[in-house]
Amino acid sequence: MTFERVRGFRDHYPEDMMPRKKIFKVAEESAESLGFKKVDFPSLEYLDLYRLKSGEELVGQTFSFVDKGGREVTMIPEATPSVVRMITARKDLIKPIRWYSLPKIFRYEEPQAGRYREHYQFNADIFGADSPEADAEIIGLAGMILDGLGLDSRYEIRISSRPLLESILNSVGCRDVPAAFGVIDRFRKIGRDEFFSEMSETGIDNEHTDLLYSMISRTVEPGKIRDVTGGFASPSVDSEISRLQYIGDLVSRMILSPVKVDLSIVRGLAYYTGVVFEAYDVMGKHRAILGGGRYDRLAALMSDQDIPAVGFGMGDAVIELLMKEEGKWFYASEKPLFYVCCTRQESKGYAFAVSREVRSGGGATIDDLSNRGLSAQLRNAAGEKCDYAVIVGEREERSRTATFRNLVSGEQKEIEYGKIGQHVLTLKGVSENKA
Amino acid sequence: MTFERVRGFRDHYPEDMMPRKKIFKVAEESAESLGFKKVDFPSLEYLDLYRLKSGEELVGQTFSFVDKGGREVTMIPEATPSVVRMITARKDLIKPIRWYSLPKIFRYEEPQAGRYREHYQFNADIFGADSPEADAEIIGLAGMILDGLGLDSRYEIRISSRPLLESILNSVGCRDVPAAFGVIDRFRKIGRDEFFSEMSETGIDNEHTDLLYSMISRTVEPGKIRDVTGGFASPSVDSEISRLQYIGDLVSRMILSPVKVDLSIVRGLAYYTGVVFEAYDVMGKHRAILGGGRYDRLAALMSDQDIPAVGFGMGDAVIELLMKEEGKWFYASEKPLFYVCCTRQESKGYAFAVSREVRSGGGATIDDLSNRGLSAQLRNAAGEKCDYAVIVGEREERSRTATFRNLVSGEQKEIEYGKIGQHVLTLKGVSENKA
Repeated sequence: MTFERVRGFRDHYPEDMMPRKKIFKVAEESAESLGFKKVDFPSLEYLDLYRLKSGEELVGQTFSFVDKGGREVTMIPEATPSVVRMITARKDLIKPIRWYSLPKIFRYEEPQAGRYREHYQFNADIFGADSPEADAEIIGLAGMILDGLGLDSRYEIRISSRPLLESILNSVGCRDVPAAFGVIDRFRKIGRDEFFSEMSETGIDNEHTDLLYSMISRTVEPGKIRDVTGGFASPSVDSEISRLQYIGDLVSRMILSPVKVDLSIVRGLAYYTGVVFEAYDVMGKHRAILGGGRYDRLAALMSDQDIPAVGFGMGDAVIELLMKEEGKWFYASEKPLFYVCCTRQESKGYAFAVSREVRSGGGATIDDLSNRGLSAQLRNAAGEKCDYAVIVGEREERSRTATFRNLVSGEQKEIEYGKIGQHVLTLKGVSENKA
Repeated sequence: MTFERVRGFRDHYPEDMMPRKKIFKVAEESAESLGFKKVDFPSLEYLDLYRLKSGEELVGQTFSFVDKGGREVTMIPEATPSVVRMITARKDLIKPIRWYSLPKIFRYEEPQAGRYREHYQFNADIFGADSPEADAEIIGLAGMILDGLGLDSRYEIRISSRPLLESILNSVGCRDVPAAFGVIDRFRKIGRDEFFSEMSETGIDNEHTDLLYSMISRTVEPGKIRDVTGGFASPSVDSEISRLQYIGDLVSRMILSPVKVDLSIVRGLAYYTGVVFEAYDVMGKHRAILGGGRYDRLAALMSDQDIPAVGFGMGDAVIELLMKEEGKWFYASEKPLFYVCCTRQESKGYAFAVSREVRSGGGATIDDLSNRGLSAQLRNAAGEKCDYAVIVGEREERSRTATFRNLVSGEQKEIEYGKIGQHVLTLKGVSENKA
């Protein structure tokens, strides 16, 4: 009899889970260094919560069921609706509010490389601030996390603006802005001819469609947005360009990698109302590494409150692929690792006490749990990639000492029991790969 | 329109989530200091996985449903079956294996104080070692976590042994050991008369039932087990007593709180085969704080492999209650917190750069995201419980400096831009409650 895992789900063995902890740690510490605080929410919510924001398409991709009380519930397919539910439920919160979360989320999609039915998603949002500084801080946090993971050579931040695009579309007589957004969203897939024909259906003439096509085909520095938007002009176009440039300037002061403007980015979901952005793999191997934007109308849609919001989400699966490609997918213990060998059954109690002293000095210990001989124990110490062996036997117990052996150099030293913690403190942590 | 949370589930706002992170951190660091490594597994498993170990009672308490492929799946009600599935799927793992995990688990039970339909559970197990040293290490880890949370005055470890109880029951002619275990498990609920009548049904006479009753009514130090088991004797009773005493001695070398023997502990689940234990609230307010034991037959039940195992699980809800009662439920940032004020819109870019320098020196920053005046910004800094304000305006930008104000003493100091990181490094972190 064997048991299998549900299709599209992952087991994480230590060699993959310990490096994954690094993603979580860097993301959480980066967020906290900007004053964000962690929240959490149920893994199960009423399905209605997603209908308003995301519509029936997402609902069709959920792990949903009818609970024993007869109501439709679902394993959460995203984080934002839960967070907004929490925000609107508490009117006493002082704004602006900076929150992050790290739930597992669930999608009933066909599994493929880098896409699973369950993954961790780091989310960060600022509520109650509609300023470009808030936009910049969210985008900057996304970049700081990638920088902290050593991925700064692999990404650039690409920013865009829905109100800027909307102003441009309005300035050229577009009669159906949402449809035009949809065409822009698909422009790399559908080809130039299809782009022209679909744009003309929204009321834009060929001359302006040509300008639009060339505008969304290019990526430029924030200072040079007008190089690509030159063909369009209106007061609101000008003001949105200024805001986007300003955001780009602020973000560039927070992160290591370049910030570019890419006006082909509209992000699929209809609920974005301001800046939108993605971290883009400069090697071109992967789809967007992460993405987000401003969504000022969601709270009002879900409650009687009007709360501006900007945020982003980052899944663990694409980050894992990038870190593996960049040779960063390993685990380095922060503590030196000691294998505590005991050569005599009667001295095990003393060995446990020695082990505690090693931990009190900041070491991690692996106690031998067998009655094997010393050489078998030392082989196990090597297999566990320990930095030191601590050997305890009859002689050591009688003299209240322990013998420390450096497993790299072979050097040995006998240390008094009362000085073990101090001795461990003086030993340097070894930062080898111990995953 | 308002949206509600599913009944029995929790939202965790920052004031509760940041202290909860402390539970997770202490648990994970304690485990890693003993060489345990983290694993993770799906939140959704086939329901069959739980039928073997836990039977239909547990299955009736699951959030289970039929997936779109027609198979019965469930949100995981416990961690052990998934971990054992992972262990038995990989024959290349070098034993002993020390693993920990921290999943959310789900039970469809009636919610009550300290019991939710979803909670975090920290789990730690050792596979492939059947020695008493392995038992002790697992029990010791449980105690180390409670010590690390500052709960050492609130708990004691109580150990017991299923094979010892079984040997004792066999020595007095018990014909139905599982039934007798059930009676012992309920002895505090059913009262003395009922205990005698149910025990006699398993074939034990009144004289021995009297001895049993007095044995399980007392809690003794490991060195004094024979004070309560004196009426029972056989070679296997003797050998199990020695093992339990030895385990107790080893555990006491790992933790701050006392280790006691309490032979009324059998733990409900049928699958335990050796030592069983609980951390017990010495104030008597709560049920077991955590619990576990040895379960050597589960792997063989689920696969063709025989793998001894010992482990425990600890939920977050009871720990939260204890920490609140002990005044330990707060969050102290490890980093000093700086509120970066900007008195002039045109200097925001410079303020963002100053903020980055503060973070590079190890500070956490809150950037003002408004265009309010300085006094409003400083009020917000106080509301966010910041340690320092960093003020940037026209004068500071022109002279490439920033003004640091200690928000407790009011002391101010102007620092050159290039020395900000260094200056922050010299400031001490303030460990006030910032939750």
